[in-house]
Amino acid sequence: MKSMPNVFGPGSRLGIVGGGQLARMIALSAAELAISSHIFTPEPHCPAGDVAAQVTQAEYDDEVALAAFADSVDIITYEFENVPAKTAALLASRRPLHPNSDALETTQDRLLEKEFIAGLNLPVASFHAIDTIEDLSHGVQILGSPCILKTRRFGYDGKGQIKIEANDGLNRAFDEMSGAPAILEAYIPFTREISVVAARNAVGEFCAFDICENVHRDHILQFTYVPANIQNKTAEIAISAARKIADALQYVGVIAVEMFVTSDGSGERIIINEIAPRVHNSAHWTIDGANTSQFQQHVRAICGLPLGSVARRGTIEMENIVGDATQRWLDFLGEPNTHLHLYGKRETRPGRKMGHVTRVR
Amino acid sequence: MKSMPNVFGPGSRLGIVGGGQLARMIALSAAELAISSHIFTPEPHCPAGDVAAQVTQAEYDDEVALAAFADSVDIITYEFENVPAKTAALLASRRPLHPNSDALETTQDRLLEKEFIAGLNLPVASFHAIDTIEDLSHGVQILGSPCILKTRRFGYDGKGQIKIEANDGLNRAFDEMSGAPAILEAYIPFTREISVVAARNAVGEFCAFDICENVHRDHILQFTYVPANIQNKTAEIAISAARKIADALQYVGVIAVEMFVTSDGSGERIIINEIAPRVHNSAHWTIDGANTSQFQQHVRAICGLPLGSVARRGTIEMENIVGDATQRWLDFLGEPNTHLHLYGKRETRPGRKMGHVTRVR
Repeated sequence: MKSMPNVFGPGSRLGIVGGGQLARMIALSAAELAISSHIFTPEPHCPAGDVAAQVTQAEYDDEVALAAFADSVDIITYEFENVPAKTAALLASRRPLHPNSDALETTQDRLLEKEFIAGLNLPVASFHAIDTIEDLSHGVQILGSPCILKTRRFGYDGKGQIKIEANDGLNRAFDEMSGAPAILEAYIPFTREISVVAARNAVGEFCAFDICENVHRDHILQFTYVPANIQNKTAEIAISAARKIADALQYVGVIAVEMFVTSDGSGERIIINEIAPRVHNSAHWTIDGANTSQFQQHVRAICGLPLGSVARRGTIEMENIVGDATQRWLDFLGEPNTHLHLYGKRETRPGRKMGHVTRVR
Repeated sequence: MKSMPNVFGPGSRLGIVGGGQLARMIALSAAELAISSHIFTPEPHCPAGDVAAQVTQAEYDDEVALAAFADSVDIITYEFENVPAKTAALLASRRPLHPNSDALETTQDRLLEKEFIAGLNLPVASFHAIDTIEDLSHGVQILGSPCILKTRRFGYDGKGQIKIEANDGLNRAFDEMSGAPAILEAYIPFTREISVVAARNAVGEFCAFDICENVHRDHILQFTYVPANIQNKTAEIAISAARKIADALQYVGVIAVEMFVTSDGSGERIIINEIAPRVHNSAHWTIDGANTSQFQQHVRAICGLPLGSVARRGTIEMENIVGDATQRWLDFLGEPNTHLHLYGKRETRPGRKMGHVTRVR
């Protein structure tokens, strides 16, 4: 039997690695519980800095700054899965770091991630490791086309991905990877994309929000609808897959598992696409649409507090505000059942997530 | 016809005078709209400081610090009505200050406040200005006993009040005022206490939250229930009185009007007790229980933005966490429909407001 974890209650200090919108919304939620936040980020003007008690601006390899940051807080989390392993190890040597380094290592590398998921006997797209042009040629023969070539590391929002439509253009595709280790994945002709966002705490309690149905545009999440338009049975299978993953990682915090739903004569199937060891864009609706937001749930989980109710308040539509769409802020403010959240980014760029709105009906 | 006011949108900088929990919750709401906050407070570790982009710690008569504070922001508000007139004037000379100085002056002085309300032909308790012991003796004769002697200025949570039960003990009561200008008010045998919390913007739009029914303990708000258990007709009269007050003050921002409800054979009547030119404890439930919180509504009003929907999400009970009750935080976190808000105060003192919970059913 597990012993109860340390409890970090009101007055505790939370260190957050990364200073973007996810860190900002974690800090805002921690504040509700009188937990103050200290942000560690290389960015000069980060969105989270405006709502945090303290900010350290330093590089992820600045060991002196990392140590001082760790020593100034009681517990540490992060907002993105690309925290360098050495950074994570240094922090974890000084303070509890959640989610743990297993979760980071597994999700930082698409090949390890796919192998991990497959190893749990959960469905993933067929995949093939690609280090050489011969690997690629061989992989395409095995997986067939179309298929998708991705860098193993540092991909997000479709960056580092190229779709291979036929058995030509392989050299060009390979060159685009610039020699980075890659993975080739079978193309999944999905009918929907969904995500399971859930929390697991140190004593193994697991609690999932209602499943999100996600619509991407140019590889960037554009809309999330809840509940997802899938069969109850599919939802159960999806949640149980996410739980299996979280349990296997001894995961503590909020986790997101992105999945494809395919559909044929025999019914719906899920195929797991990606694991995000953090709060997730597709659950931003929980701030306004659930009894407990994913951000507070994350804080509760990592601080050893009881998980909150995930009851939903209505039918949900979340819309990301990307790039110039931020100019529509005044329209959004005028919509009666719409909750506007802007991230305080000083510069608008195409494809940059500037905020989101949640419509609850 | 009125011209449209200046609009302060995302990226604007909001100055907040005072660093307590009201400032903290205003700052948290402003952040949702990417409006960053700068707190001005004499306190060394203020609750609002942990969630604000900037804090100036200085006295309210430090004109250099006040000027620098004003120059660093686009618009200024405050969290309490006892901002010194000179401080307010200096700030208002440099940046838009909402609510305006009329609202401050009127509500800082119980005598001016009562005269103002009576001047609008709205019901107030009978009152009598008290400067001398002869005034007091005369006042008690006119108003009868029991009646209540209050300092004209700087009273809150029952401080500076003494109940006079009969025509003796007048010297002692007078001495307790320590020579401060005072006001004697008739005692109102009320059946309920309610508050109307509403927003008015610069073009005169007015929007009230559902009326709050308030229960005090030791003069400190303990519970708020919404909807108030009063007749619809009474609610209409109460809201229309609040609107008349806000209009007369050319008020911009959130205003709270505290009222007594009396009841006799001829039905319910309201009697106005006090005006608070700010966000108000009795509407803290709006964070979790209304489509727009009073804090965001205040930011919208002062920034020239459209007012938000005040639709309520259920039946509400708000409980203040006062003094040692803050030790119950873990119990509150475990209640399923309960939203916990702690203010990050470092020291717990009897009678100190440490946080609140909102139960939505």
